[in-house]
Amino acid sequence: MTTPEAREEAVLEAVGKRREQVNEAIPEELPIQRPERLYEASRYLLDAGGKRLRPTVLLTTAEALADVEPLSVDYREFPDLGADGQTIDVMAGAVSVEVIQSFTLIHDDIMDDDDLRRGVPAVHKEYDLETAILAGDTLYSKAFEIMLETGAPAERLVDALEILATTCTKICEGQSLDVSFEQRGDVTTDEYLEMVEQKTAVLYAAAACLPAVLLGADDETVDALYGYGLDVGRAFQIQDDVLDLTVPSEKLGKQRGSDLVENKQTLITVHAREQGIDVANLVDTDRVENVTEAEIDAAVAVLEESGSIEYANGTARDLVARGKDRLEVLPDNEAHDLLLDIADYLIERGY
Amino acid sequence: MTTPEAREEAVLEAVGKRREQVNEAIPEELPIQRPERLYEASRYLLDAGGKRLRPTVLLTTAEALADVEPLSVDYREFPDLGADGQTIDVMAGAVSVEVIQSFTLIHDDIMDDDDLRRGVPAVHKEYDLETAILAGDTLYSKAFEIMLETGAPAERLVDALEILATTCTKICEGQSLDVSFEQRGDVTTDEYLEMVEQKTAVLYAAAACLPAVLLGADDETVDALYGYGLDVGRAFQIQDDVLDLTVPSEKLGKQRGSDLVENKQTLITVHAREQGIDVANLVDTDRVENVTEAEIDAAVAVLEESGSIEYANGTARDLVARGKDRLEVLPDNEAHDLLLDIADYLIERGY
Repeated sequence: MTTPEAREEAVLEAVGKRREQVNEAIPEELPIQRPERLYEASRYLLDAGGKRLRPTVLLTTAEALADVEPLSVDYREFPDLGADGQTIDVMAGAVSVEVIQSFTLIHDDIMDDDDLRRGVPAVHKEYDLETAILAGDTLYSKAFEIMLETGAPAERLVDALEILATTCTKICEGQSLDVSFEQRGDVTTDEYLEMVEQKTAVLYAAAACLPAVLLGADDETVDALYGYGLDVGRAFQIQDDVLDLTVPSEKLGKQRGSDLVENKQTLITVHAREQGIDVANLVDTDRVENVTEAEIDAAVAVLEESGSIEYANGTARDLVARGKDRLEVLPDNEAHDLLLDIADYLIERGY
Repeated sequence: MTTPEAREEAVLEAVGKRREQVNEAIPEELPIQRPERLYEASRYLLDAGGKRLRPTVLLTTAEALADVEPLSVDYREFPDLGADGQTIDVMAGAVSVEVIQSFTLIHDDIMDDDDLRRGVPAVHKEYDLETAILAGDTLYSKAFEIMLETGAPAERLVDALEILATTCTKICEGQSLDVSFEQRGDVTTDEYLEMVEQKTAVLYAAAACLPAVLLGADDETVDALYGYGLDVGRAFQIQDDVLDLTVPSEKLGKQRGSDLVENKQTLITVHAREQGIDVANLVDTDRVENVTEAEIDAAVAVLEESGSIEYANGTARDLVARGKDRLEVLPDNEAHDLLLDIADYLIERGY
């Protein structure tokens, strides 16, 4: 039996190898062209880094479905599940999903007026508001164009483009719910989980099911993989909320407890409020720069006492367990095991 | 021979009848649903009015291709060009194009910080910046979802979705060029026409060729109709520039000559500068509210003297003539005649 640390290291290595290939494919699918400033702004966040977790899920799911050894087949010429020798460019599908993710980050940073992203200025800070809106809009349509590059047969392409479109609509709906929650003091855990599903989890769901659609898997497989992505995507976001409270600031790369200071709703705060805790006043300070570690420690102690942190941890664990069960539709192989490990990693990761 | 006034009236009547049907279809394709505020903001400009010129071009082209009497066939169950009795929902295609137009208006108004649109507050004024960005993003993906509702066979749907995606990318590129032109004093007429093609004309081109794609016409017809839309779309924008100078303010609904006051590049000002005229100082006033009719009259006299207004008029006329010629691929019928009249209307309209 391997240790959690060894498994985390194995996941990070597997993600890293796919990330290298995704990083090579991005400039191929999205070259800097005229008007250069627009395309440079569109590429800015993509080039600034990112773990590429969603493309990794997509590429690994393709390998599990095709029952091939991980990293043994060219993602650009990936074997169809049929017997006709047709190949599909699953890398284009992976880049398409990452491009959608990047578009939403650019527009979200404008909406939240965030200054930094991935250690660099947000696009509307590095460029300007007009360019950031347009860069996001350009990535939006480019994601559809890039999906068309997969070379999948027309009927599967239509399904893939429909998944892309409905996913984008749901992300907008989720972001709209998130914004509306800021004005409300009575959000329930069910409402919070619905918001997280729409804002975050649907793109993991798309990443997991798209290779099944593109390679020609049956509906049962597509649905199961969609469910896997939805479950682990929600767990990922809940874990983010937990980490904001429990990981030291220097490891987190931002002030621990910033969600509490900014009065952001998380599964933890929503649960605590349902237990009768005055969440809005857990931390007195109203500026992240001024909060002390002692204040955060005291707030975390209250949230532990109320069982809210354990509730969030438990919810994430349950979602990951359910997501992993859904992978039973896949053949038993190395890529399948990696998808199980990725699910665990999403809630076991230290930051 | 009919008078221009009688023809304009006939065009407006034909547009008006299709507009009624488009206005009925919009809430069917884009119902207000949860989260309501997001969908209300998404529908806000669509419900505020608009001529629906692009949907009219799409619906009329469908009628010309199918060789049916205008308004005699249900747009929701429109006959395929093949002999298999299949029907296509061309109204969904028309709504999809109008939804794209509305998304670009919402984001453009943010970028230009315009207060008013169609006589009502811009979406970011009526709601807020966050909601306006999200409303535009929602319409963007909804346009793809609505196009999928046409029920066209998969291969045609893929082509239609590709046209939609590349059209959106070009609109972003055109808008980016337009923004960059504001910083430059050396834009050429060719550069200006390229910008107008991308920012405005491609959506007319999409509207004209999409019914051919959806109904299964051959490539030659698709290309010719795309060219028709590109030509008349450019003529439409150039005519807008001319009208800004020549139509009395009360008829225009805004101050005549506002483009000059705001130092906006138009085909007229770009041409005048190429003739050595100091365009930036044609009008001294720097606020639209303060400009006098006498100042505008004097500026227009200079632009007439330089031949710049006639140059713009002539360019628009040439484009319309070329666009009309391209319609020779269509059967000779009433809808075909209406498309010719719409082309003339776009440059003969008084405002």
